[in-house]
Formats: sequence, structure tokens, C-alpha cells
Amino acid sequence: MSSSSGLMASLSSSSSARLTSIVSHLSAGDVRPKVVICRHLGPAMPSLLERNDIDIVLWPEDRTCERAWLLENVKGAAGVLVLLGDRVNEELLEAAGPKLRVVSTMSVGYEHIDLPLMAKHNIRVGYTPDVLTEAVADISVMLALMAGRNDGVAYSIVKNGGWSSFAWSPFTFCGPQLSATASSPTRTVGFLGFGRIAQATLARLVPFGITHCIYTGSPNSRPDTTRDAALQAKHNLKVLERVDADRLARESDVLFVLTPGGQETYHLVDAAFLKKMKKMSVLVNTSRGSVVDSDALATALREKWIWGAGLDVVEGEPAISTDHPLVKEPQCVMVPHIGSATFQTRLDMATRAIDNLIGGLFGGEMPAEVGK
Amino acid sequence: MSSSSGLMASLSSSSSARLTSIVSHLSAGDVRPKVVICRHLGPAMPSLLERNDIDIVLWPEDRTCERAWLLENVKGAAGVLVLLGDRVNEELLEAAGPKLRVVSTMSVGYEHIDLPLMAKHNIRVGYTPDVLTEAVADISVMLALMAGRNDGVAYSIVKNGGWSSFAWSPFTFCGPQLSATASSPTRTVGFLGFGRIAQATLARLVPFGITHCIYTGSPNSRPDTTRDAALQAKHNLKVLERVDADRLARESDVLFVLTPGGQETYHLVDAAFLKKMKKMSVLVNTSRGSVVDSDALATALREKWIWGAGLDVVEGEPAISTDHPLVKEPQCVMVPHIGSATFQTRLDMATRAIDNLIGGLFGGEMPAEVGK
Repeated sequence: MSSSSGLMASLSSSSSARLTSIVSHLSAGDVRPKVVICRHLGPAMPSLLERNDIDIVLWPEDRTCERAWLLENVKGAAGVLVLLGDRVNEELLEAAGPKLRVVSTMSVGYEHIDLPLMAKHNIRVGYTPDVLTEAVADISVMLALMAGRNDGVAYSIVKNGGWSSFAWSPFTFCGPQLSATASSPTRTVGFLGFGRIAQATLARLVPFGITHCIYTGSPNSRPDTTRDAALQAKHNLKVLERVDADRLARESDVLFVLTPGGQETYHLVDAAFLKKMKKMSVLVNTSRGSVVDSDALATALREKWIWGAGLDVVEGEPAISTDHPLVKEPQCVMVPHIGSATFQTRLDMATRAIDNLIGGLFGGEMPAEVGK
Repeated sequence: MSSSSGLMASLSSSSSARLTSIVSHLSAGDVRPKVVICRHLGPAMPSLLERNDIDIVLWPEDRTCERAWLLENVKGAAGVLVLLGDRVNEELLEAAGPKLRVVSTMSVGYEHIDLPLMAKHNIRVGYTPDVLTEAVADISVMLALMAGRNDGVAYSIVKNGGWSSFAWSPFTFCGPQLSATASSPTRTVGFLGFGRIAQATLARLVPFGITHCIYTGSPNSRPDTTRDAALQAKHNLKVLERVDADRLARESDVLFVLTPGGQETYHLVDAAFLKKMKKMSVLVNTSRGSVVDSDALATALREKWIWGAGLDVVEGEPAISTDHPLVKEPQCVMVPHIGSATFQTRLDMATRAIDNLIGGLFGGEMPAEVGK
């Protein structure tokens, strides 16, 4: 990096990315690699834009970059920084040409990237896991509380001016309590998928008096009894156990869906699963919409198979209209996929995506590389 | 209790409270004390209604009991079980007459009870603290998360069908993150009032990565440095310190109002206080609306002195219309005083209120007696 940096500084001290781009095309070979950035990444950008050892082409508008623009500008690029909306496929690779060696996405998911194709062409792929663990764990707890405490209905009543006229009674607005009490001392939290975010969510729930934790793991993964014993001891739980989907459904008071998307997990939470759940239980999905069958969940809420649901993700998002069965369901609270939407986390994600890009570009270490 | 129980059983085996009441009036003296219950308390009631050593008069409707009915029926009562809406004052005492010896309220607050008057007449007062600690701590955490994560706006967008059309960008919907992160490792939580609920809320926040806890205590209370040192060690905090209101306002990232109402705490959170707070801070009030100046808070949110607010209580509730400045404020999330509204807690409160009533009625121990 540093060797080319001095050279490029002497060629051009302009801060205009576009001008820099022209200059770089005049220079010989690939000394100063070209990168396409599909979106301005806010406060994380200056450190990238000020580099003079790379030729940066930046989508100039504050909206998803146009495909035609991307296909035109990616020609000759050695790296591309994308978001979830930018597909990285055969078409993009053909447009880019043979110099492309790194794709960096500012997201924890990489469904938009054709990984086998990347492997075939020896293109390294960076993503941004880990840094959003805390933010998503936070919103998982928030949605569990909101769904249990009837927050959708309660909030609407205040916003619609109905507070003064609703009839209070000792059990109005009551829902199941997330935290344990002296007279109700047992709580079982379940996780469909038990990775980093699930474990961070569990840690947050311990002082709520959670006593039992059960989870299902990927069929491809082996039970890790050593890890589980350590976690159980750390959190002073009566039970921490990997179980099958049947037990997970039957025993969870609050069930968190925290598993990757894709075919393997498609509709794992369907009508049959929901029918097994406790009547007073709450379902939270903060991972991928495709894991939960929306129609089945709407039926489960309407027919009171379960108490409530809190969703940050929904199948088919963002095309979720007011006619969507879950939007119409009062016992469902939904937010528009904002699990990682905090200033701290998005800044960390942007920084990580830039670091991955730079690492891949110059053959160095990528802080988070897919498959490594 | 048991001595009169056998006697009364022989006088009447009827389970009708009203018939029992007539029978009791025929019996000599105050052997079988009369109690008035101002509201059916749900699943906690059977154990009370089945007792045949007391003469129970129960308001038969599922709404706040009418004052005229109460004044008429309280005549000759030895005990009365009330809710927040039932004023216990000179008028009620005169209507009851000299036999009244216990007032039990199913609430943690007792603003509706004239305590000096009760003391003057040697009437014991029971209430229901403690049992709602966990439920209110839960909703305090929920509101802190909701206010930080822009939940009011996010939820409304989904409910109004706007998810598909809102323009995503790397910082859309971002708010301050409750939990600490590797790149932002410090979080200060503040408590205006540091009683049971505040301490239960603090415990829940520890795994979110809270590092500093500051609080203000009642001017009448002395600092408890031993307790504080123990809490700091238990939660592994860098700081746990009693501070003045100025520091509380200036240093808190999330500030919880958890102090009793009344004149002493009236508008402690006013414009001057709010102006000192951090621009990215969040205010949560789950205690009494009177502590926070609503107009000042609305201005603070509108003019971005602070980031957001989460309220379970508002001055002047429940008369909160759509014109209320805080209802109109997008960065304010409000729920209609449902802090203790869980099945588990309300059942515990009802049970406690009944136990207090029985204890006071027969001169025994009251599980939670005001001033004891």
C-alpha cells in the first residue's frame, strides 16, 4: 500500500475521485487499482476517499446504485464495495473483467453474492459479521418485550387518543411477563439457531430471571457440550441444552429465530411448528424472513395458538403492504429490518467493509472474509 | 380468624356474599367484619370470596366502582380494598364510620389515600410494592430500547404500508445504541431515584455493556456507600455513584425516572434539566408523570436537545388526546401506564392486596403496610 501511495501522490494530489480516476487510467498497468463504491457510507468514508493509492469511483447519489451505472463503471475494477441490493453475479463479473479480485459487502448476509462463482474466479469476498451482534441482540430483546406486553395495541391506543376512554381493569393490557417472579420462577428461552447473536441475546436475558435455555443447531453442526456446559455455568442456568425442533417449539416461553436464511431453513417455523408452541409464548424473528411462514404465523396469532410476535424481518420484505396478514394482526409488532440500525454499528460495518476492501485489494488480511 | 370461621360457618353456609352480608348484620357485634371490595380482582378472588369469616360486599361491575355505591356500601365496614381511582379521604371515613381499621390498595402508589387522616384514626394501610418491581423494570428496558431505536417512526412506517417505499441508506433509522460496542465501549446509565425498580433495571442493563451508573437520591436520604460499593462490585461497573441532578443530566446516556410522585419531585425534569442532557441521550419515565414537564420534554424532542423519550406515564393521564404535544412528537414512544400489566404481576398484586386486607382485618401481619 505505502509503496504505491507515494507514487500516486506525486501523480495527482486532487481530492476529486473522478479526476483521480482519469489520472489512474493514464498510469501504467494496475499500479493504482480501481474500486467501485456502490454507496456513500457516511462518516466512515473520508479515510477511504483521502487515499491516493487507489482509484475510487463512487456512486454519487444517496440511493441504491443503478445497475446500468454499476455495470458501466465496474469495467476494469479490482474491487467493488456493495450493499445487500447489489447483485454480484456472472453479469457483474463479465462487466468487470479479469482484474476483479475482491468483493466487499457492508452486510452480514451475502445472499446477493454468487459464492461458487467467486471461488471459481479466485475473488475474495468480505462481509461484516460480529460488529452487528450487539445491535441485533438489543432489538431481539426489545421485540420480545414489545410482543409480550401488547405494545402494538398499547402504543396505537395512545397515538389514536384512546387512552382516556379505554376501560382500565386489573388485567387490561396484561401479557406474559418476560422476567421471572417469586411466584412464577421459571422461564425457558429458546433459540432456533445458536450463533453469536443468539448467545448475546441470551446473556442479556439472564438478569430477567431466565432459568432454562434450549436451542436447535444446524443439522450439519455437531453438539458442543463443552461450550454449552461453560455457558450454563457462566449464566447460572438450570438447563442449557441442544434439543430437536419439537421440544424447542413445545417448551419455549420466548422463541428467537436467529438462523441464516436460504433453502435449509425455509419455513422451519410453519403451521405444524406454531401449533406445538405454548399459548402464552412469544416468537421473535430478527434474522431472515424466509424462516417463518407468514400466513401460518398470522393464523397462529389470530387463533391464539401463541401470544404474540415481534418481527424485524418478514418474508418478501420490503414489499409489505397494509394488506399483509401480519401487518393487520394486532398481536404482531413489526419494524422494518432495523436490527443493525444504530450509528455505532453501521459505522463499524462501514469501516469493516472498507478494511475488507483494502485488505483484498492489496493482497493483505481481510478482517472478515467469507469462508475463512 | 379460625375461631370466628367455625361460628360463621354454622350461621350461614351460603356462598352468596350478599346473603352473607344480611346474616352478618343479624349477628352480634363485629364478630364477622364487613369488607368492601371496589373491584373484582380476577383469578385471585376465589380464595377471598370463599371465606366465611368475613362479610364481603363486592362492586359487581367490571369498571371503576361508583362513588355513590362505595359511600353507601362502606357503612359499617372494617376494611376496604381499593384501586388507584378510589379516593380514601374524610368523606369515605365518615361514610364508613368508626369500625374501619384497614384500607388495602392494589397499587404501589398511595396518592389516593390521605395518610395523615389514616394515622389519626389508627387505620392501617396496605399497598403492593415489590411484587411489581420486575414487571416495571422490564418495561423500563423496553422503552429505553424503543426510544433509542426510533421505534415509534419505524413501527408506524410498517403499519402504514410505507416499508416498501422508504429509501434505505446506511444510516436510515439509526439511533444511539443502548449496548456498548468494541469501538464505543462506554455507556452511562442514570437514575432519578434509585430504589428497587431502578436497581432491577440496572441489573438488566449490565449485560448490555453498561459501564457507569449514576443516580440521585431523595434529599432526605443519606448516601449508602456500603450498598453502592457492593452493587458496583456485583455488576462489575467502572463507576456507581450518587451525584447531583446537574451531573445526572449531563452524563447519562440513558436516564430513567424512577422516583415517587408528589410535590417533592414535581417537574424535577424541566427545561433547564433537559437542556443539560446529551444530544444523543434517551429519557425514560416509568414512575409518575408529574416528575417530567411534558411541554419542556416536547420542546426538547422537537428541538433535538435529546434523542428520544419512552414514557409509560404522563402528567394528566389518562386525559391524553391526539393534540398532546408528546403524542404528536415522533421521537416519543408512549404506552398507557402498563408498567405492571402482566398476568403474573397483577395476580401477585391482587393476592398481596387481599393478604394485606385480611391481615389488617384480624389484627395480624400485613405483608406490605405503609409506614412499617
